[in-house]
Amino acid sequence: KIDFTRLRETIKKSSQIGAIPKNGLCRLALSQKDKAMREIFKEWMSDAGLKVRVDDFGNMYGRREGRTDLPPLVAGSHLDTQPNGGRFDGVLGVLAALEVIRCLNDHEVETYRPIEIINFTNEEGARFEPPLLGSGGLTGVFDKEYVYTRQDKVGKQFKDELKQIGFNGAMHHRLQLAHAFIELHIEQGPVLEKEGVSIGVVEGIKGMTWLELHISGEGGHAGPTPMLCRKDALMAASRMLVCAEEKALNFDHGLNVTVGRMNVKPGAVNCIPEAVTFSLDIRHLEDRIREQFIEELTADLQLMASELAVSMDMNELWKVKTSHFHDRIISQISNSSERMGYSYKRLYSGAGHDAKYMNTFTPTGMIFLPSVNGKSHVESELTLDKDIEHGTNVLLDSMIQLANM
Amino acid sequence: KIDFTRLRETIKKSSQIGAIPKNGLCRLALSQKDKAMREIFKEWMSDAGLKVRVDDFGNMYGRREGRTDLPPLVAGSHLDTQPNGGRFDGVLGVLAALEVIRCLNDHEVETYRPIEIINFTNEEGARFEPPLLGSGGLTGVFDKEYVYTRQDKVGKQFKDELKQIGFNGAMHHRLQLAHAFIELHIEQGPVLEKEGVSIGVVEGIKGMTWLELHISGEGGHAGPTPMLCRKDALMAASRMLVCAEEKALNFDHGLNVTVGRMNVKPGAVNCIPEAVTFSLDIRHLEDRIREQFIEELTADLQLMASELAVSMDMNELWKVKTSHFHDRIISQISNSSERMGYSYKRLYSGAGHDAKYMNTFTPTGMIFLPSVNGKSHVESELTLDKDIEHGTNVLLDSMIQLANM
Ligand SMILES: NC(=O)NCCC(=O)O
Ligand SMILES: NC(=O)NCCC(=O)O
Repeated sequence: KIDFTRLRETIKKSSQIGAIPKNGLCRLALSQKDKAMREIFKEWMSDAGLKVRVDDFGNMYGRREGRTDLPPLVAGSHLDTQPNGGRFDGVLGVLAALEVIRCLNDHEVETYRPIEIINFTNEEGARFEPPLLGSGGLTGVFDKEYVYTRQDKVGKQFKDELKQIGFNGAMHHRLQLAHAFIELHIEQGPVLEKEGVSIGVVEGIKGMTWLELHISGEGGHAGPTPMLCRKDALMAASRMLVCAEEKALNFDHGLNVTVGRMNVKPGAVNCIPEAVTFSLDIRHLEDRIREQFIEELTADLQLMASELAVSMDMNELWKVKTSHFHDRIISQISNSSERMGYSYKRLYSGAGHDAKYMNTFTPTGMIFLPSVNGKSHVESELTLDKDIEHGTNVLLDSMIQLANM
Repeated sequence: KIDFTRLRETIKKSSQIGAIPKNGLCRLALSQKDKAMREIFKEWMSDAGLKVRVDDFGNMYGRREGRTDLPPLVAGSHLDTQPNGGRFDGVLGVLAALEVIRCLNDHEVETYRPIEIINFTNEEGARFEPPLLGSGGLTGVFDKEYVYTRQDKVGKQFKDELKQIGFNGAMHHRLQLAHAFIELHIEQGPVLEKEGVSIGVVEGIKGMTWLELHISGEGGHAGPTPMLCRKDALMAASRMLVCAEEKALNFDHGLNVTVGRMNVKPGAVNCIPEAVTFSLDIRHLEDRIREQFIEELTADLQLMASELAVSMDMNELWKVKTSHFHDRIISQISNSSERMGYSYKRLYSGAGHDAKYMNTFTPTGMIFLPSVNGKSHVESELTLDKDIEHGTNVLLDSMIQLANM
């Protein structure tokens, strides 16, 4: 069993790097805080006897040799966070994997296969859109040019920022082959807590689409321009948001539609907004329903735009289909939970994870832990000690089993 | 009559300082561009033989002596612009007043009273809210501490920025007494153009209120958080905007309600917005209607907020009652228009102007010129040459008459 006191200490140290008020973290991908965290993580891996390497996407690996030279069992997640993120999203999966290594060292356990643990770059997509750039690059879902040219809000490029923090490693350091991949993560939703279950056995990840909409109206002076003569881009966008929410609620209760960012131009109190840009994040377990919803919504919004005499442009930022994890890994996680006497439940993830793209590369599965109040992407994100302990024990047992196959 | 070729040249030079594409200007108050414009304007005033001084709000004055030492006739407007502003809003009133001085010099006209021309600081309120800080400070509507501590979006203070550009003049340079104030300005609305009239004789300025609303909901992850469990601050704000617009349209056709800026936190695609801040600009000719609308709207929005399970806070950024200009100045402008054979029309202004606060200090009036398509606060803002020429002639005639009283 794992040493929970040590794991808690490690989480505490990570929680200091990029700390913001109310127990939150702001450790955006490839920022100075991310660099600081990466450097400590590198040290921790070396101290645990792992051989450290970094690939050309900045993904960090620590390798523990096995009795054979077969493809390794791989575990990990990400250390970057949202701008107002919590201490557990991603971080826990990396630190739990490190705790597993430390625990194997404590008991001098040798595994049949090597084990590698990973910290993936820019999982969140909060600084560089879309998410999962590190795992997507590694698994060939995104080509290198695409990843390298992603820009943040102020126009800085992924490539330059990666170099800037000194984590632009070598292409030949990428993971070549793997026996399996396993990721521990917080649920970020309300299901496990509501059902009083410790372990979520993740069956797959819901499909999602990110769109960006540009509404162009006509600017003007707020004072002398009669309301009936206006083509106010923000008023039009507001009606579109209400339409999108209502349509989603009536379409299918499994749909999630979110407008997370919105930008208004020129953005002065006495200027009628001439242009508005906003994002749309759309998710559903069934690809068909998601796609049909988007098709209908797009038509509705186009109609609204022409009725409101504004113009609408749309571009797709990201799209992934629903993924289904590998039976063998799903069973392994269930068996380990069962054996340790922890309650568990199968469920699909509404959030994207590096496991999503790793699943296209090697048999993959995920362990979910309950989120207090179902909250994530907020400072108050919390997973209870006992759940972290249970989850990391399930990770330990699953990793040992998988590494000995 | 004025020398229109010279005036057009002067406008052209001003249009180069802070130029942005599509014939626009971005010359935010107390910016480096504002400084550059101020320095040229200072030179132009000196070249025209004016005695230049700057007060402690950065208001710039140029004085031409008269036969007596009586309180001066004063004319002017502002040289700052919106972020995506045009070449005429404010600028024209300053440069037309300068042209009047040059014209008096050409013909060696001596007036009974001295004449002073003014460039007021931060009329727009685009960088430092609220608008009219220079004229409001001068006339004692705002106290100095209030003006000095206004902050821009990045937290820079008026006082420091004024010092930074070197236009923090002396308190004893403020205008002490005046015989009258007259401001030429573009209409920024559609009335004069629609009616084919050259000169607007402004009777007063509509009352206006600027509010700031803060909506607080609950953040969370866009993926795993079911829509029915959310307290999405942006979805709530969108419904409020639609409500405000519809209420305004049904309440009174003379009402103008505008939401010009909106800020979403944390502002990432996959984060449910936890907080939204937006402005409300509300105007009407009748103070009673404006106030009643605000009272009812506030109640409606509070009700919506509680129904949507978000909280709402409101603060007032600015409020001014409708002002009525002075009969003597109104008549003078009508008479001058009449005498010169230009078509004219009385109207109230929907936009605030420095004349608003000057009206509390000295008898005041304004000359409006048609705006092509009624557009202002946009790059494409335009007033036709012939209208500029007519308007400046009316300004010349009115100033001579008023300065000789
Ligand atoms: N787990 C997580 O927050 N991933 C970011 C990608 C997404 O939006 O689902
Ligand atoms: N003229 C003008 O644009 N003034 C700014 C104050 C207002 O919003 O009316």
